[in-house]
Amino acid sequence: MNPAIKVAVLGAGGLGRAACRIIGMKQELQLVAICDSKGLVASPEGLACERIASGSGDLVSSYLAGESSASNGNGHGGCATATVTAVHCDDSLKATAEWEGSIDAVLVTLPNMPNEFIPTVIKQFVQRRGEVVFVDVLKRTAAVEQMFALDTVVKETGSVVLTGCGATPGLLTAAAVLAAQSFIQVERVDIWWGVGIANWDAYKATIREDIAHVPGYSVERAKAMTDEEVETFLDTTGGLLELHHMEHADDVLLEREGVVDSRTHVEVGGVMDTRHPKKPVSTTMTLTGVTFEGKRASHKFILGDETSMAANVIGPALGYLKRGCWLKTHGIFGVFGSTEFLPMVVR
Amino acid sequence: MNPAIKVAVLGAGGLGRAACRIIGMKQELQLVAICDSKGLVASPEGLACERIASGSGDLVSSYLAGESSASNGNGHGGCATATVTAVHCDDSLKATAEWEGSIDAVLVTLPNMPNEFIPTVIKQFVQRRGEVVFVDVLKRTAAVEQMFALDTVVKETGSVVLTGCGATPGLLTAAAVLAAQSFIQVERVDIWWGVGIANWDAYKATIREDIAHVPGYSVERAKAMTDEEVETFLDTTGGLLELHHMEHADDVLLEREGVVDSRTHVEVGGVMDTRHPKKPVSTTMTLTGVTFEGKRASHKFILGDETSMAANVIGPALGYLKRGCWLKTHGIFGVFGSTEFLPMVVR
Repeated sequence: MNPAIKVAVLGAGGLGRAACRIIGMKQELQLVAICDSKGLVASPEGLACERIASGSGDLVSSYLAGESSASNGNGHGGCATATVTAVHCDDSLKATAEWEGSIDAVLVTLPNMPNEFIPTVIKQFVQRRGEVVFVDVLKRTAAVEQMFALDTVVKETGSVVLTGCGATPGLLTAAAVLAAQSFIQVERVDIWWGVGIANWDAYKATIREDIAHVPGYSVERAKAMTDEEVETFLDTTGGLLELHHMEHADDVLLEREGVVDSRTHVEVGGVMDTRHPKKPVSTTMTLTGVTFEGKRASHKFILGDETSMAANVIGPALGYLKRGCWLKTHGIFGVFGSTEFLPMVVR
Repeated sequence: MNPAIKVAVLGAGGLGRAACRIIGMKQELQLVAICDSKGLVASPEGLACERIASGSGDLVSSYLAGESSASNGNGHGGCATATVTAVHCDDSLKATAEWEGSIDAVLVTLPNMPNEFIPTVIKQFVQRRGEVVFVDVLKRTAAVEQMFALDTVVKETGSVVLTGCGATPGLLTAAAVLAAQSFIQVERVDIWWGVGIANWDAYKATIREDIAHVPGYSVERAKAMTDEEVETFLDTTGGLLELHHMEHADDVLLEREGVVDSRTHVEVGGVMDTRHPKKPVSTTMTLTGVTFEGKRASHKFILGDETSMAANVIGPALGYLKRGCWLKTHGIFGVFGSTEFLPMVVR
């Protein structure tokens, strides 16, 4: 077996910590670094994934608080004699990029507000440290377009970026590329998602990103909302967020790939219940087209209601991360969309 | 735009002729050769796809019969001044491999009885003529395993083979790889297909391949059946063929890719109605697994009932053909399954 892929995770919110938990379950992956806005935890010998996943709040403080009581994590990735760096710092992203241990791939689970934030992070990261594979779970069209604009610098540094690699865009968008194969002309792609979360506290940034899609709101306005204002907003909707005509990068990804002639034929919307874990609707990708015989039909890809947002975002992202390493091994560098390659199964 | 991919089609039955019709609709593809068991029709300037697609019976005779009345086909691919070779020959596959015009990619739509037939054809083809991309729509596990055994010779000749690239295995198997991304453990993959054809005459070989899966029948026995015997067999079932526990290569492809621990967790079956074009059941891939949080769920990929077998087999096959050319351009040679790469959209 090849040595495990050394993974750094940028962002330690709900998705970042779920990523740590999943990485801990995978023989082919080893978590070597994770940062949040306040600090960095890293070890060349691998971190105890479960210990980080089960923490909450400030990453470094919660890691250090667990030090005395910690087990060795889940075996793989945890090591009693490991040299662990756990430091608060002003620029933790810079500290991660300049960390002396080796990093094969970076999973970016930072909240992306404003739109240029993650593209800027990745640009600075590749300039400080080349030959790395990046995977993001960006959602907004404008953000993904900024990622594609990095193609030259990413190529020059021998790096690979796979963008839009969560659930939508990501899993469902790739399913649309598959579904398109049966048709001569694709008329439209409709993505309608359902998310249910028992407690929105763990997904504060994700929910603000969704509120930013509500008519009358913007990325800036949603980001500026206090937790109380979010609570008040959700009280007016019974905890539900129903969104239509979302600016989601599924459109630009499917247009680039040639699935649709125009991104206007891609429609993304959904319903989030912030008070119940049960999904209010089943997440479904419906692609409608016309076959070579002139028949109109729709293929559907439907996610099981019991699968969580974290499973459907981080699972695919790690599959694309393995694919990104495959591309780098084959000398194929640059920025690619989740519609260009099949994610790999990570054992 | 890149020059069109020069495509040869091996086999001129229902699927081969449907492939010609679809190729004629694609700017990125040019049909340069097609053969059946009795002869070869080829032109370095491209063939009139619609003229070949609309023929029936013996390829060369039907092509020549259309010569005086033929239009120039569909514009692209047809040329009034084209030099066309249209010859009956004893070994048309050898004649195609040795044809002097250039061929970038070969779509294999020959009936595969016995199991070693298509692997042998491809082996001989790459030995006679290297640097070619092959795509097959093989169904049986044993046949796909024989394809993978060709990896060394395919690599040595600078060629690429993508195997199992139809609907199942192919479109639905790749959908299973996507669906698997949400789960830590995949428990089973169930593929249940429906096919309806108005007239089984155009798909004589396909139906024999399906009869070969009926308990008590074998590839050899099905191949040896006369048309009358097939008719009599179908009379006993009201024209329906319901098949369970089919030996389909979805199993080996998903096992190789790591989607399932064991191929025994993949189950393929379906219902073919040989007397009505309406599908008797909706073709569905259901993948059931457990997420990292321990939740059991099923993702589904469902094909629109109005899509024909030809659309769902040949569409994906041509998408994989473009992917095969991409692999060859990047210097990546060998035999790959349809579960390893996303097919590309062919414009």
